[in-house]
Amino acid sequence: MTQVSVGHYLFSRLKQLGVESVFGVPGDYELVILDMIPEAGLTWRGNPNELIAGYAADGYARLAGVGAFVTTFGPGELSAYCCMAGQYAEYVPVVHIVGYPSTKAMNSKAIMHHSLGDGTFDMYHKMVEHISVATTVLTSPDTAASEIDRVLNAMIYHSKPVYIGVPVDIGSQQISGGGLARPLTTALPPNDAEKESAVTAEIIHLLGSRKSPVIVVDGGAVRNNFVQEGEALVKLLKIPYFGTAMSKGGVSEGIEGRFGGIYGGGASTKEVKDAVESAALALFLGHYPSDFNTGEFTQDLTPGNLVDFQRFTVKIAGVIHEVSGKYVLQRLLKELAKLPQTTVSRAVSWDPYPSNNLPTPGKLTQDFLWAKLGSYFKSGDFVIAETGTSSYGIPASSLVDVENVRMYNQTVFGSIGYATGAALGTFVAGKESGQIKRNILVTGEGSLQLTVQTFADLLRHELNATIFILNNDGYTVERLIHGMEASYNKVPAWAYDKICATFAPGFPSRYFRVETGGDLVKLLTDADFNSNSCTQVVELILDKHDAPMSVKLATAAVENFNKQN
Amino acid sequence: MTQVSVGHYLFSRLKQLGVESVFGVPGDYELVILDMIPEAGLTWRGNPNELIAGYAADGYARLAGVGAFVTTFGPGELSAYCCMAGQYAEYVPVVHIVGYPSTKAMNSKAIMHHSLGDGTFDMYHKMVEHISVATTVLTSPDTAASEIDRVLNAMIYHSKPVYIGVPVDIGSQQISGGGLARPLTTALPPNDAEKESAVTAEIIHLLGSRKSPVIVVDGGAVRNNFVQEGEALVKLLKIPYFGTAMSKGGVSEGIEGRFGGIYGGGASTKEVKDAVESAALALFLGHYPSDFNTGEFTQDLTPGNLVDFQRFTVKIAGVIHEVSGKYVLQRLLKELAKLPQTTVSRAVSWDPYPSNNLPTPGKLTQDFLWAKLGSYFKSGDFVIAETGTSSYGIPASSLVDVENVRMYNQTVFGSIGYATGAALGTFVAGKESGQIKRNILVTGEGSLQLTVQTFADLLRHELNATIFILNNDGYTVERLIHGMEASYNKVPAWAYDKICATFAPGFPSRYFRVETGGDLVKLLTDADFNSNSCTQVVELILDKHDAPMSVKLATAAVENFNKQN
Repeated sequence: MTQVSVGHYLFSRLKQLGVESVFGVPGDYELVILDMIPEAGLTWRGNPNELIAGYAADGYARLAGVGAFVTTFGPGELSAYCCMAGQYAEYVPVVHIVGYPSTKAMNSKAIMHHSLGDGTFDMYHKMVEHISVATTVLTSPDTAASEIDRVLNAMIYHSKPVYIGVPVDIGSQQISGGGLARPLTTALPPNDAEKESAVTAEIIHLLGSRKSPVIVVDGGAVRNNFVQEGEALVKLLKIPYFGTAMSKGGVSEGIEGRFGGIYGGGASTKEVKDAVESAALALFLGHYPSDFNTGEFTQDLTPGNLVDFQRFTVKIAGVIHEVSGKYVLQRLLKELAKLPQTTVSRAVSWDPYPSNNLPTPGKLTQDFLWAKLGSYFKSGDFVIAETGTSSYGIPASSLVDVENVRMYNQTVFGSIGYATGAALGTFVAGKESGQIKRNILVTGEGSLQLTVQTFADLLRHELNATIFILNNDGYTVERLIHGMEASYNKVPAWAYDKICATFAPGFPSRYFRVETGGDLVKLLTDADFNSNSCTQVVELILDKHDAPMSVKLATAAVENFNKQN
Repeated sequence: MTQVSVGHYLFSRLKQLGVESVFGVPGDYELVILDMIPEAGLTWRGNPNELIAGYAADGYARLAGVGAFVTTFGPGELSAYCCMAGQYAEYVPVVHIVGYPSTKAMNSKAIMHHSLGDGTFDMYHKMVEHISVATTVLTSPDTAASEIDRVLNAMIYHSKPVYIGVPVDIGSQQISGGGLARPLTTALPPNDAEKESAVTAEIIHLLGSRKSPVIVVDGGAVRNNFVQEGEALVKLLKIPYFGTAMSKGGVSEGIEGRFGGIYGGGASTKEVKDAVESAALALFLGHYPSDFNTGEFTQDLTPGNLVDFQRFTVKIAGVIHEVSGKYVLQRLLKELAKLPQTTVSRAVSWDPYPSNNLPTPGKLTQDFLWAKLGSYFKSGDFVIAETGTSSYGIPASSLVDVENVRMYNQTVFGSIGYATGAALGTFVAGKESGQIKRNILVTGEGSLQLTVQTFADLLRHELNATIFILNNDGYTVERLIHGMEASYNKVPAWAYDKICATFAPGFPSRYFRVETGGDLVKLLTDADFNSNSCTQVVELILDKHDAPMSVKLATAAVENFNKQN
């Protein structure tokens, strides 16, 4: 039996799962296992800090399927707990590998650096259990392989983050590599056949008996990987379908003119809201009714009219069935194909993007910006939008006329600073896979403050990203919630034109400042700009109280909700 | 009885404890209480991210006594847990105030942004209990005042971090402000008189019977506030005394020529090591035997020869007595003053700073740098050194000939990036109190990567800091531990000359690049440079494998320890 080191076993498993790059920040407890990353055929991509590393692993997983990052015990890992909580909330499978002090140091209760100074070593592990689906600290080589497999299996099964601690004396110990010959299972186990049949039959019955059904592909469908089944269902049934803020860019909008718009309760247009809420049957794929995804809980849905497909369940008219939503969708497609089609084919009679035809304004406005960005996006683009006016605005960018523009944002967890770090990971994964033609990041200058040093990595890895920075002199979303003129919602002005030169001297970059609607149109239609031949920073000057229509509607609802609830 | 809001009560308590500035990052769950900061007479000093905010509060507390910062539920607070763990390890009293969702939203299990998406709201609170001495989430106005007082009392009593969650609907509710008329107790309760007498008598007996005693003022004396008593003891007994890496800059080195040097086991010079370890009696004030503070556990001390004064205990020859070390020291000083002095006065026969007379090198070297910085420091300076070659090097900067130069570093927890954020807090506190004449930060370019955006605040608050950046092309301390030529120990080169202009355009700053010993001497003796009339960045070019003697000794010990233990 081939012997391999514990670290080699771990990184080989990750390679089997499709990981090619590992993010993180070096620290002395982990240096030994960092040597094993290239030995397992992976690339180490160290980051300026752990918050960025954890976000990058998240963004990487959103494209490559699984992400991984390495930090050190204590300060390193703690600084990335925010990333793990976000991965937990948003179904992002990432393994956080943490270099621990040696088992002997821990057993002797030595006062090691990065500890709390009291001779205990299990406190961080106890903390992280609240934001992981499985955790382990490898204290023995005898159980290391089985523990690694157990934890990685849980990550895949739940599509959530996990944690593996590797003491500095364990990583290099030799164990059997025999297990590596059997790859981990990456598919969910099949449904109970009887349950699946019954659930499928009930949905077919509803489709035959309820008038004018609609389909809403929500964030859970993207995160749990059944968008493809949803799109096939739209094509089969020939009925209107909708996206949400959370699924934006995860679902195609170009299917046969049947895309009805982005549904977010009170944050969507009246036509969209009515179409979904008045339907006698709405098939929700991965409904995720979080505040930001529902216009602050202003979805007025009738439970009796809903079927909701989730990772482990399907809910029909309020009754939960323990079956995988993905497999039920696959079964449904198969059964429906055999039956005569009874659902009445329907077209979309309203405009899903009414802002598309706004006149070009003097000073740039939010609504004009998002409409124009829609026409700028091209097949092969990957667009990442930051929480704030960007994540609220970008659903208003039409993708109806373009295929294969992918997007995501962190709708549920909503951590500012996330998008810049996550973009790094996604763009690296895209470059490795050849799947992305243009890398685009849209963020606000308030959010950029948190993780700006990511620019060092964006440039040195030659990702040629185009980065739109909305400069509206502070936290506009917060202003609309509370403190319209408060000084705490202002952020210090930085020189955005100097960021690239500061963090990556010698790497090519370009800077553009856009103040008017005309500036924007000119830039977005410029051929050279469209070529993304180097890193491009676009500073967009916006009024500090201007916001997309959906954010105005939703933030009014947030303050109201916070007061009443 | 005057009614005040819950938020007003909380911030008024902080004002009573000496807090003038509150750090943090705004978020919608906390915006309402941010309004109450100026209402209570405090200043809000928002930061680029939460890691910086938590570090700034730490640095503020180290000068002002207590620190405070505000973040939002979830991403905000999680990103600062690293700061709290460091405060815990290093006895820094800081309150972390967290804006929570409304009690109604929590009770209804709504899927709020910043949560894990599962309708639970207590997970972060459970996590933070591992790194705090007291926590509360204020779910009712009826108990808010007593809960605030309980938690702040614990912070003061233990000199450790605490956590107060304020739901968005609770902060503005009106409660009785009557309690504010009775300030919180800030002194520890008195010792049991009988125990204190017995302990004091035993120490006096030892002083009379053991030959050649010495005093070691360690980090615990600084953090638990009995340096003054230690200095008085040195003056009374007229015997050699020592500092440690952790107490460097917390204790005066100029007392009557009796300062023997910095004691760190195998990381100190032979003379210093022998003097402490061969003493028949060593009075340790706040001994903190962590790896970095002891040359990786190479202190060869005889327990029977030690008296160790701690916050809540005094240990005599291995026997622990439950009495406050500070009060025992005060009692000891009183009793000794009444007795005839029996301890033999002794001078220091060795040079505590043998590197002081190195010849000026061509290319700048670490040992030359630290010696020269010693002669540059002046009365009224506050110097903060980053973990790494800075924290290992700066103990070699002599303070023997200058009074009132204060310093600290994070010896136990050792989080890189800390010093820059903490410096912000200390310099703000120093400016408020008028206690600091010159603000000095010494960091490495590897550590700067984590929290570089602090420069925005350092400049806009016009702190006129002088910032030495050691540029040795990566993580030199890590290289010496493992991976001397490994690519993961290299960091991307930034343009350090552009940092100020990027983060604070319009604020005055100067930049200097130092490559030779001669460059350094010239700069450090330049009158204009010494005036600190604006922010000054000094980039020090050092060889990537060069390190101060103590770090060479200690990192060799680290790798050895990690291998064997």
